Amino acid sequence: MLKQMVHASKTNLEVESLRPVEEREIGHCTKVRRSVNMEKLQSGYLFPEKAIDLSTVEGYSGYGDEQGNKALRKRIAEKFYENMGIKGEEVFVSDGAQCDISRIQMLLGSNVTVAVQDPSFPAYIDSSVIFGRAGELQGQNGKYERIVYMKCAPENDFFPDLSNTPRTDIIFFCSPNNPTGTAASASQLRRLVDFATANGSLIVYDSSYAAYISDGSPTSIYQIPGAKQVAIEVSSFSKFAGFTGVRLGWTVVPEELSYSNGFPIIKDYDRIVCTCFNGASNIVQAGGLACLSAEGFQAVSRVVNHYKENAKILVEAFRGLGMEVYGGQNAPYLWVHFPGSSSWELFAEILEKTHIVTIPGRGFGPAGEEYIRVSSFGHRETILEASNRLTSLHKHIFK
Amino acid sequence: MLKQMVHASKTNLEVESLRPVEEREIGHCTKVRRSVNMEKLQSGYLFPEKAIDLSTVEGYSGYGDEQGNKALRKRIAEKFYENMGIKGEEVFVSDGAQCDISRIQMLLGSNVTVAVQDPSFPAYIDSSVIFGRAGELQGQNGKYERIVYMKCAPENDFFPDLSNTPRTDIIFFCSPNNPTGTAASASQLRRLVDFATANGSLIVYDSSYAAYISDGSPTSIYQIPGAKQVAIEVSSFSKFAGFTGVRLGWTVVPEELSYSNGFPIIKDYDRIVCTCFNGASNIVQAGGLACLSAEGFQAVSRVVNHYKENAKILVEAFRGLGMEVYGGQNAPYLWVHFPGSSSWELFAEILEKTHIVTIPGRGFGPAGEEYIRVSSFGHRETILEASNRLTSLHKHIFK
Repeated sequence: MLKQMVHASKTNLEVESLRPVEEREIGHCTKVRRSVNMEKLQSGYLFPEKAIDLSTVEGYSGYGDEQGNKALRKRIAEKFYENMGIKGEEVFVSDGAQCDISRIQMLLGSNVTVAVQDPSFPAYIDSSVIFGRAGELQGQNGKYERIVYMKCAPENDFFPDLSNTPRTDIIFFCSPNNPTGTAASASQLRRLVDFATANGSLIVYDSSYAAYISDGSPTSIYQIPGAKQVAIEVSSFSKFAGFTGVRLGWTVVPEELSYSNGFPIIKDYDRIVCTCFNGASNIVQAGGLACLSAEGFQAVSRVVNHYKENAKILVEAFRGLGMEVYGGQNAPYLWVHFPGSSSWELFAEILEKTHIVTIPGRGFGPAGEEYIRVSSFGHRETILEASNRLTSLHKHIFK
Repeated sequence: MLKQMVHASKTNLEVESLRPVEEREIGHCTKVRRSVNMEKLQSGYLFPEKAIDLSTVEGYSGYGDEQGNKALRKRIAEKFYENMGIKGEEVFVSDGAQCDISRIQMLLGSNVTVAVQDPSFPAYIDSSVIFGRAGELQGQNGKYERIVYMKCAPENDFFPDLSNTPRTDIIFFCSPNNPTGTAASASQLRRLVDFATANGSLIVYDSSYAAYISDGSPTSIYQIPGAKQVAIEVSSFSKFAGFTGVRLGWTVVPEELSYSNGFPIIKDYDRIVCTCFNGASNIVQAGGLACLSAEGFQAVSRVVNHYKENAKILVEAFRGLGMEVYGGQNAPYLWVHFPGSSSWELFAEILEKTHIVTIPGRGFGPAGEEYIRVSSFGHRETILEASNRLTSLHKHIFK
């Protein structure tokens, strides 16, 4: 019994919130196989790093729960997943979305297949390569073999043509998307969830930019019924609360989400978080909790609105030059199209002639070739100055 | 040129501090093969997350270097590696040693072999299992197949018998050791480095408890000549500066350290840190830097001395009961031997009868069976109370 108590102190999921597999009503299972490595792992050495004495001691308590401060987990569930049935126990607080993507890669076996939006944030592909999920890089088109690239471009409303997309175990999907700045609509996400359900795929949904959504598009994949059985959601305080460099994010792993054998993925993710991570900084978590108070949330919303205004200014500047501009309404990023141009050359030319740093679209995948990504994160004066320079110098840049 | 500039902003190692492989005088190389996955990885998409304008903007700058604040890296090199020739560029600031162990696992290919001290901190073995380096768990002895367990016990002075240790790619070695509390001597570490050099092995040396060394034993593997060609060192602010839960550590990857093909391991580690991590919290790094100022260092040293005193009190208490006690001199942990007893039963009995939480030695490996680990992290009153309870209640516990 005491042994169980000690175990429970670290793997409280096992005893508190999860009934054994055999007792659960197994609904939809993904077709993602449980990693043989996770299967081998001994069930919990798991010891408490506590003071030597159980009597209450005032003051600093040292290591917290690896899964995150309980109050913060609960608050995230309430604030971002209201009416979606997500519980605090399903929220794992982390040091950021990029790190969580690697932890999700660790979780899964070595033979899983991967699909990504093209263009997309490079960490999805790069971590997939590091974890052995990719074949060789093909020089001619800049794509890795075995990775499925789901092209997202104006002609398909930046949503992949799923009728032509092969089945993969994992589908990385970022909405609002970095770099295109486009948010998927409810009907698009409905199609994505249906596609994943039919294929037994696992969606890894990145909602890091959800706070920028202005047109009523879903802010979470869990707004789509059935998503809890097919999707993990990764998110972040970086963009929503200006926490860049502070390192705070979270990942939601619903209890309903299962491997092909019915085993709950949340149990393995919990183990990964305890073994290969050790929780986000307690100081930073306190900051995150403050941002989710009524007062804090108002303050961070003002900042988000400031950047939304910045984005509008930049959209107008580029549109004034006659460019096709995507994004900027539901995201802090603009995705500007220069048909027929090389994104690296565009980047260089804009930098040389206006001293404005953009990001060449090619850095986000082959489909980014004729684009640059423009960020609205900056002081208002900087944005206005950039807008002025673009307007006054446009004849030198835009032929 | 501009393209190179952008690359350089993230992979400054490539241009600043590392000459190309072909230009370096290649000395000793390990026999650890470079991961085929890292070889596949496209060399640097790597984009700068900066304000839109290059003109200087006062204020918050957002994401910092993934490798850590430059001043902190330099200060760690000066403070902990004085006269060992470690440069700031070889220090990667992180969110803690446990996380760095997983990042080192990510770095290396899937077919590497692993040796660990037995007993040892469970994360070495568990992360090895997660990364597919272990065979099946053998019920009869509690060991994983394919993992080499290097027994550390009183009869070998808690240093493995290297003449009987098979060659592995990685040797995890923690000194002062958690849980045994023993620090390897200079001559023992000399043997370890010679062993690794002869075998082409890579030592992953965990010096998280080095601040507790009191008898002049080496505080870093790099005090041993030749170690830079065979060892990565992982360390932490958790125990030295009371940063448990604050999440700050570092890993040293010397430029001299190479894969079997001569490729510098530091380049791949840099890539892992940029792709699968995103740097320690900037707030926490500022705290770490403060701890390494003259004043800060004095303050944290006082705290370490306080815990060292605690350890002495506990050593005396257990010795007073006639127990064999190891550790406690060079580490915050005591390793108490109860010949013939089960460590889980000991743990339960001590907890029930004295309300003192210890850790059953078995949790650290098969060789921990007759031991309990006792921690000296606690308030002085708690430690004195624990000492009193042990003394007064000993007749109930110790037969």
